[in-house]
Amino acid sequence: MILRSATIDDRAAVEEILVSSAGFSEEEVRVGLEVFNSAILGDYSAFAADVDGRARGYLCVAPIAMTASTWHLYWIGVHGGFQRLGLGRALLAHVEDFIRFSGGERITLETSGRKEYEGARLFYEAAGYQAAGRIRDFYKPGDDCVIYCKELP
Amino acid sequence: MILRSATIDDRAAVEEILVSSAGFSEEEVRVGLEVFNSAILGDYSAFAADVDGRARGYLCVAPIAMTASTWHLYWIGVHGGFQRLGLGRALLAHVEDFIRFSGGERITLETSGRKEYEGARLFYEAAGYQAAGRIRDFYKPGDDCVIYCKELP
Repeated sequence: MILRSATIDDRAAVEEILVSSAGFSEEEVRVGLEVFNSAILGDYSAFAADVDGRARGYLCVAPIAMTASTWHLYWIGVHGGFQRLGLGRALLAHVEDFIRFSGGERITLETSGRKEYEGARLFYEAAGYQAAGRIRDFYKPGDDCVIYCKELP
Repeated sequence: MILRSATIDDRAAVEEILVSSAGFSEEEVRVGLEVFNSAILGDYSAFAADVDGRARGYLCVAPIAMTASTWHLYWIGVHGGFQRLGLGRALLAHVEDFIRFSGGERITLETSGRKEYEGARLFYEAAGYQAAGRIRDFYKPGDDCVIYCKELP
């Protein structure tokens, strides 16, 4: 696995990741691609995890306006055929180093409170993210938003 | 007081509101104007409260992507010389009707947990907003973010 900055050439691989990971609806794939495009245009920072020369995982982060040193993790995705190999964990550790190096002191993220996202929540909790809030029915009825935050030492 | 949609002609009045309300830093004034410009360009909806033919209060809202019916209150401001007259409350009630009419079912917002923002938090709580989370040191050390949500019946 190789970790590196993502480029415009990763667009097709990112679309494959989004479509293959099954958890994402059509709208989520569309928004995920929009976020990735914005990242490439410079509003966010994007990193990719390559396996055999092709991006199989990626994430997008950006500093949050009007905060001194808080960043937001906008998106993280791993290809359906390359999950449970540690790509997500490696990407997260890589971006935490990048954010720390850039002067960031904490990362926030939002995820679903649904049962299907329990794996994602455990993934974040294992990586040191702590729940900081929950908005009931945020995504849709029965689908809460859980807000996480991690302080970077 | 007259409540109406804001237009590009309100830009100078909005800048006056931001500068006069004392609570906003230079960066917050800049971001506040950016959000207002985006609203006028169509990404958000903006409403103004006029007193004697000039906007003395305004707010910006937008539906949140990937949610079925959740909106976010991005900004609300009342001119320093026109506070405690009910402009904020009237704007909030107006935009809640607008959001309900547009199919929205809840509104989220973020504000500071600092002592200086206690008035703002009490204002939201009196309007039926409930705290749904708190991110420590979000804005800067000692300046938490408090997340509020209101269900629209």
